[in-house]
Amino acid sequence: MRSSIATVCISGSLGDKLTAIADAGFDGYELFELDLVTSRMSPEEVVTRSADLGLSIDLYQPFRDFEGVAPGLLDRNLRRAEHKFELMNRLGIDTMLLCSNVGTATCPDDSAAVDQLGSLAALASRNGVRIAYEALAWGKFVSTYEHAWRLVEQVNHDALGICLDSFHILSRGSDLDAIATIPGEKIFFCQLADAPLMNLDVLSWSRHYRLFPGEGSWDLADFVARLVHAGYRGPLSLEVFNDVFRQGDPVVTARDARRSLVLLEDAARAARLPLAALQSSALDGLPAPDILAGLPRVDASRGFSFIEVQPGAGTAVDNVLVQLGFTHQGKHQRKNAQLWSQAGVHVIVNDDLTGPRPRLAALGFEVSNVQRASARAIALRSHLLPRDRAIDEDILDGILAPDGTEVYFSERDGETPSWLAEFGTGGSVPTTVPTLPPTGITHVDHVALVQPWQRADEAVLFYQSVLGLAVSDGLDLASEAGLVRSRSLVTADRGVRLALNVTPLQPETTEVYLNHIALHTDDLVATVSELRARGARLLPIPQNYYEDLDARLDLGAELVETLRSLEILFDRDDRGCFLHVYTMPIGQLFFEIVQRTQGYDGYGAANAPVRLASQRAEERRRPTD
Amino acid sequence: MRSSIATVCISGSLGDKLTAIADAGFDGYELFELDLVTSRMSPEEVVTRSADLGLSIDLYQPFRDFEGVAPGLLDRNLRRAEHKFELMNRLGIDTMLLCSNVGTATCPDDSAAVDQLGSLAALASRNGVRIAYEALAWGKFVSTYEHAWRLVEQVNHDALGICLDSFHILSRGSDLDAIATIPGEKIFFCQLADAPLMNLDVLSWSRHYRLFPGEGSWDLADFVARLVHAGYRGPLSLEVFNDVFRQGDPVVTARDARRSLVLLEDAARAARLPLAALQSSALDGLPAPDILAGLPRVDASRGFSFIEVQPGAGTAVDNVLVQLGFTHQGKHQRKNAQLWSQAGVHVIVNDDLTGPRPRLAALGFEVSNVQRASARAIALRSHLLPRDRAIDEDILDGILAPDGTEVYFSERDGETPSWLAEFGTGGSVPTTVPTLPPTGITHVDHVALVQPWQRADEAVLFYQSVLGLAVSDGLDLASEAGLVRSRSLVTADRGVRLALNVTPLQPETTEVYLNHIALHTDDLVATVSELRARGARLLPIPQNYYEDLDARLDLGAELVETLRSLEILFDRDDRGCFLHVYTMPIGQLFFEIVQRTQGYDGYGAANAPVRLASQRAEERRRPTD
Repeated sequence: MRSSIATVCISGSLGDKLTAIADAGFDGYELFELDLVTSRMSPEEVVTRSADLGLSIDLYQPFRDFEGVAPGLLDRNLRRAEHKFELMNRLGIDTMLLCSNVGTATCPDDSAAVDQLGSLAALASRNGVRIAYEALAWGKFVSTYEHAWRLVEQVNHDALGICLDSFHILSRGSDLDAIATIPGEKIFFCQLADAPLMNLDVLSWSRHYRLFPGEGSWDLADFVARLVHAGYRGPLSLEVFNDVFRQGDPVVTARDARRSLVLLEDAARAARLPLAALQSSALDGLPAPDILAGLPRVDASRGFSFIEVQPGAGTAVDNVLVQLGFTHQGKHQRKNAQLWSQAGVHVIVNDDLTGPRPRLAALGFEVSNVQRASARAIALRSHLLPRDRAIDEDILDGILAPDGTEVYFSERDGETPSWLAEFGTGGSVPTTVPTLPPTGITHVDHVALVQPWQRADEAVLFYQSVLGLAVSDGLDLASEAGLVRSRSLVTADRGVRLALNVTPLQPETTEVYLNHIALHTDDLVATVSELRARGARLLPIPQNYYEDLDARLDLGAELVETLRSLEILFDRDDRGCFLHVYTMPIGQLFFEIVQRTQGYDGYGAANAPVRLASQRAEERRRPTD
Repeated sequence: MRSSIATVCISGSLGDKLTAIADAGFDGYELFELDLVTSRMSPEEVVTRSADLGLSIDLYQPFRDFEGVAPGLLDRNLRRAEHKFELMNRLGIDTMLLCSNVGTATCPDDSAAVDQLGSLAALASRNGVRIAYEALAWGKFVSTYEHAWRLVEQVNHDALGICLDSFHILSRGSDLDAIATIPGEKIFFCQLADAPLMNLDVLSWSRHYRLFPGEGSWDLADFVARLVHAGYRGPLSLEVFNDVFRQGDPVVTARDARRSLVLLEDAARAARLPLAALQSSALDGLPAPDILAGLPRVDASRGFSFIEVQPGAGTAVDNVLVQLGFTHQGKHQRKNAQLWSQAGVHVIVNDDLTGPRPRLAALGFEVSNVQRASARAIALRSHLLPRDRAIDEDILDGILAPDGTEVYFSERDGETPSWLAEFGTGGSVPTTVPTLPPTGITHVDHVALVQPWQRADEAVLFYQSVLGLAVSDGLDLASEAGLVRSRSLVTADRGVRLALNVTPLQPETTEVYLNHIALHTDDLVATVSELRARGARLLPIPQNYYEDLDARLDLGAELVETLRSLEILFDRDDRGCFLHVYTMPIGQLFFEIVQRTQGYDGYGAANAPVRLASQRAEERRRPTD
């Protein structure tokens, strides 16, 4: 289906917006009145610019509050409409959106609205345009799509149809079955927005919290499938505005938007309810629109293939890895990168690129087919990272996540990751640190990535779509440095867990929000005892924490004493327990060592304020590095 | 009354918080559990630190979900309580807050809750402490203060009283009359928070949007007066948390908090309803608490006394003032500051302090008594600005507003501002620009100040309290560069209008949010014609704006053509019209020239997106300065 987006979704001047919309691969756009009024481009220049960019102008939304008014006001409204129809002709736009009256309507009965919409339709027809009438969820007398459709049906004019907007319909919890009763050709337009579930007045919800499909809570695939089933063949158009997009980079927002629509179309095809219809004649008349056809979802459940840290900052990272029981495996054939491993956990320390402080630079995920995973990522509007590749190197395609993390796909060659061959086993250990025995690390439990708040929703969509992860939960954490929103993305078998921690709004406080790598052990007490014996620097935990733990949970004096003496944090949920410790930060990252028992499914969020306070206290103590 | 604040209100470590709370002049504080748990200070160290700072610890809130539970859980809860009572003894805190059960309660009937609260009271009593029971608005079985009081009354134990929290009571719209039926000695504590009116679920409302008294919509003065009338003699304690405070500077937040409480006490004394009670015996037992006693509200309705711009940036500012018809009046006796005037509007261009670009540095307000206004500002926790004063200079006290603007008070000496004498009339004109005739400017219509979003609520309280202004309205503006919240503060006669424009969250886009000075003329068409004849550089307005104006409003072809040819913006409300133009920005400020007719009460907000888009377009065109 054709893709479209309202100019109001993104920031910048009209020229900026059109460039970004074309860049992201949209077919057309809805022109928002204010974007034209504030522009120095004349209508004719807008037409030329759009044609140059290959964009159609699908809809114009010049005014509201038309129908159900007193006769005198009707005349003024018709006069205004005629002005706008002339403008639409100059712009070459054939469809005008008319929202149901929220302000000036004074006639509650349908007959006045029918008469007045009829007059408008006749005027539109004479001017060669048509009207798509849409019920706003907070419309004064018309607030449901069923009601809007009854009016349109009664007017019964070729130049009047309806516009179905997912926000206005789903925010009211309307029954969607009536969509099937509307003839497809009378559905003139379709606007799509997702939203988080909120108990907020619907106007504020709409103004500040709309999201692109897949970033909120609604089943938009079902909504779209119903429209197609009803015979709708117009564009799928995004009308999403929130406080973040209004301020974001237009190119980033447009790409995020396009990604959401690609995924939505894919999901709509797979939607259960109208599956029969979609597979049969209902889709016959459509051009092949499926960008993702033949590109099955990526299954990242094979787990983390590697984690790359750069730079090593001399021996700082190596020292911690050695203490954690990692063994040096070799040096990369061409790069200044060292591989450290323990029980199938691979950490690459890359000194090819220098930076001020070590950071988590890349995550490798094992997939069944790298080429297909990459093709899907490209279809989802991600760009492959440039990567010089030796002829004998593994195919290892990378894309950039919104948070700046590089994400690589890799395959497995029998028991070993195929990229492993790139590391010569004969490479000498790069440091003088002696190798120590393993400490019981079994696998990567999770990776926690800090998300800039203005790109957090985009990141959730990115990781879901490109890696096939699912959102498992979300929570707010109040720490002494601000409010941290957290969302967890997982594979069904929990082989991959990503914890996305959204930074607070005020940038000065982000310095303690570091990425971290959580490693699992089956016996944290033993692992930590060994680490302490090795002199590892673990994050200090206040004694007050253990007094409170003792008061809160019936753990028994012995366990509390063990936890206290080793400064291990403890949490539990309905299923099991979670014990964890943190290393001191190394640059912009740190390690966590965890033990997860009996199906515990969280991340010790209750203890996060303790960690953040302790990191902040350490930050103050140590000299600036 | 004694003033107190919950540590949860402000950010930072416990040590940071205590310092900030003491600094702001509070008498005591409520210790929030998590602040102790995450602290490296032992309970004994907290006691010592508090004593050193002169702070009492008024309340401890260690846990929730106590009453109405199954017997097994009760035992665990009592065990936990005893742990916390011991800790309270170490901390020297005599009152524990207990919120009504939201999670674990399973017994809906009051009898179980009464029994269990009785057990807790007995245990508390044995440990020498007492319990203040508070109904949370979203409590499972107990959600109103009347219900909480019924339970406390039935338990009838000296160690059990209630805590009244304005948020939980006012957010539910509860009837306040029952407060008078509670014996004062059974009201163990009082927590205060204001909030904006929102149609949001009460839990989210509470977590994210609480404000200090005076910053929201509630009549907290009435609430406090009712408590005093009932005989409450404990501290007035602030319990306010929102997403901004969690991230703010603790010292700033604590000062803002203290200011709100000073004002609230003042307002409570003046509250109509319990006036009789307050003036009679009900207040006899109280120490004189009125910090503001004898400091009447500042009446800034005499208007703007002067506006100071610094630096002049060579002749950049002078040139614009000359074009606008200002006349050079003289140079300051000691400073490198020039006075320009037109019809009682005084603009001072100060080159003593240099900065990168001209900015609106200070506002002078005429008051009846400078000393009283300053004393009031000090009582409201503002600091006087250091100012070297010559012996013959006017008393001109200044304070710093949250947005960085310097606010000065000045008196009038007969017909002239008394500070005017500081400017020697014999000073030579500092530039070679010829003086031009006046352009019809009559007075300052308004001044628009950009507010950093994280200090916007504080700013509203500051300008209200220090200048005696009233909030007249608030609105959200969507511009192409983001969402701008705007609030208007005015004197009753509109002699002073301040428009506070709150920046969007993302700092990169703030560059176009400039302060501006709006000057009034009685004939904008004549003024603008003259300005254009003088070659003044006014902000270009897109032609599309006039096409839309013509479609929207029935202004007649002639008026629209006049507006279009002079590029004048137009707005109207129920009462009158508003015509306005803007100068091009000079550094970080610009001038607006307006004509306000027939009681129009706005600021042309509908045209703000046009202005912002045009400023942004100009910003791109001109070389960086």
